[in-house]
Amino acid sequence: MAKAWFLTSRPTGLPSADNFALRDLPDLPLGEDQLRVRNHWLSVDPYMRGRMNEGASYAPAYPLDTPLTGGAIGEVLESRIEGFAPGDLILHLGGWRDGGIITLDHMPRLLPVQWLDSGIKPQCFLHNMGLTGGTAWIGLLQVAAARPGDVVFVSAAAGAVGSAVVQLAKAREMTVIASAGGPEKGEWVRDLGADAVFDYKQGGVLDQLRGALTRLGKPGIDVYFDNVGGEHLDAALATANGFARFALCGMIDIYNGAAPQPLRYIGRAIAARIRMEGFIYSDLFSRYMEEFYADMGGLIASGAVQMRETVHDGLESAPTAFGGLFAGQNIGKMLVRL
Amino acid sequence: MAKAWFLTSRPTGLPSADNFALRDLPDLPLGEDQLRVRNHWLSVDPYMRGRMNEGASYAPAYPLDTPLTGGAIGEVLESRIEGFAPGDLILHLGGWRDGGIITLDHMPRLLPVQWLDSGIKPQCFLHNMGLTGGTAWIGLLQVAAARPGDVVFVSAAAGAVGSAVVQLAKAREMTVIASAGGPEKGEWVRDLGADAVFDYKQGGVLDQLRGALTRLGKPGIDVYFDNVGGEHLDAALATANGFARFALCGMIDIYNGAAPQPLRYIGRAIAARIRMEGFIYSDLFSRYMEEFYADMGGLIASGAVQMRETVHDGLESAPTAFGGLFAGQNIGKMLVRL
Repeated sequence: MAKAWFLTSRPTGLPSADNFALRDLPDLPLGEDQLRVRNHWLSVDPYMRGRMNEGASYAPAYPLDTPLTGGAIGEVLESRIEGFAPGDLILHLGGWRDGGIITLDHMPRLLPVQWLDSGIKPQCFLHNMGLTGGTAWIGLLQVAAARPGDVVFVSAAAGAVGSAVVQLAKAREMTVIASAGGPEKGEWVRDLGADAVFDYKQGGVLDQLRGALTRLGKPGIDVYFDNVGGEHLDAALATANGFARFALCGMIDIYNGAAPQPLRYIGRAIAARIRMEGFIYSDLFSRYMEEFYADMGGLIASGAVQMRETVHDGLESAPTAFGGLFAGQNIGKMLVRL
Repeated sequence: MAKAWFLTSRPTGLPSADNFALRDLPDLPLGEDQLRVRNHWLSVDPYMRGRMNEGASYAPAYPLDTPLTGGAIGEVLESRIEGFAPGDLILHLGGWRDGGIITLDHMPRLLPVQWLDSGIKPQCFLHNMGLTGGTAWIGLLQVAAARPGDVVFVSAAAGAVGSAVVQLAKAREMTVIASAGGPEKGEWVRDLGADAVFDYKQGGVLDQLRGALTRLGKPGIDVYFDNVGGEHLDAALATANGFARFALCGMIDIYNGAAPQPLRYIGRAIAARIRMEGFIYSDLFSRYMEEFYADMGGLIASGAVQMRETVHDGLESAPTAFGGLFAGQNIGKMLVRL
């Protein structure tokens, strides 16, 4: 019998184990336009924290006492949807569970066989070839319109999105300044090719960003890829060159209700004519999907983009993996392997 | 002998009389590429406060102990520049003085005779047909790409820029919610056609903005024209519809070093995919000048755009007029008449 995590109460601040319950799913016969699947990989992502709040955001709130949803890689066991057959590997939104029945609402898609054949692992479609890599690619290249020669600053650079930003920017001959928390993460980001890396836990963000610019002989930043908000966003405002572009992707600092930090340098948005733009992967992905797969698939195949995963094993570990996102416990993509 | 205001010390916080001194200008013979002028109107504008700080911003800092500069309408007395003759009315940057010698650095331009002939007053080229009207037009229609049917929120709506935004938006069938300080300003903004006006001195901005939206039966705002920053910007973030556009024009709250307010709703920039963009009139004016003159000139001639001036008389009053900008003392454009 399949099991799934249910949201049983809405977190205030950081999510805790009390907010979730693992329950059996009913064992129903397969209806029309449904698939029965066994999941192999589940994704946990910061955006899910927003959906645990009451009230509409860009994605609807998760209802209480129903199975949670999210990205997953599964194998089709039984199909009543045309084009899907037992044994197919699919990407779908019926995550937070080990399997069971998924419907068209879970938007099942076959994993593209040509990329699997070229050696890209299935779970990669939950990160570099999917949500997080796509977010990095769209935000850096489309929203922020970063170009070769630009100085790019990226926060949470050891995270799934940030690490993809670093590598995409280096593959296009940009200068990259990255912020990450702690020596292990910093070392990995340096290995990915970042020109300067600092540890935001070791001092003020603005001072360290200015120091990095000085060492690189650059007057300021052209692009900021924001994964955290707060002090990092303010430091980016302070050091922006004229006509800088900021892609606002995530503000992990405030998902959990932390007090927002005053932006002392917001006035520079005018002085430096900064464009700041919030974006969401799902708005834009279908428009760029073919171009993204070709570009990112090629970069992964050539080794220019590496992947790293922080893996928790077993469905039971899903809330722990999810909570770890907000404690800075992941390097690269946080995944649950079943 | 011509006189000019000199900046003698850099203000900390609000500018005061101590920061300025009125001094004689040397009586020199006219050199090549110079004009001798008598000024009739001087402009004082909030952006000048930024230039009084040390260090580069978008415009260079005013040097100490030299004559201040700024927009002015003058009459040519003597010319050694081709195309300018005694009696011509010109717009130039040799303000803060009653006349004297101006050079090509002051960018003298003839006032367009066809618009003067159609009844537009010369000083209007310091506001609706110039810096402030051009700022409103570019910010609303180009930067924020406001379109008929949009709900537009504008702060400091009784100011020179804000009042032009209100009227341009109404002329294009947008819904306008305006914030202004005090009953007299509010009444004027209502007369200009704003659909809802509130007084930010009478309660929280966010509560009043939400109340206005409710009364108008609108779910949120599509465009925010920001003249003040701070609490107004935060309220705009809180109430933005999806894909809202913010033109960041001025943050008078922080020109004088007031502590920035935390933006509690900055995270909505992502959820609502908000684009915020700082802009400066002088970057864009030449690109749009012909279109702007034709559009704004027609709206003024038809009465769709009215103008209102707060006038101080005499060169001696220039610092007082300038300081009044930051005390909310102007309705419409603040000018000095000589």
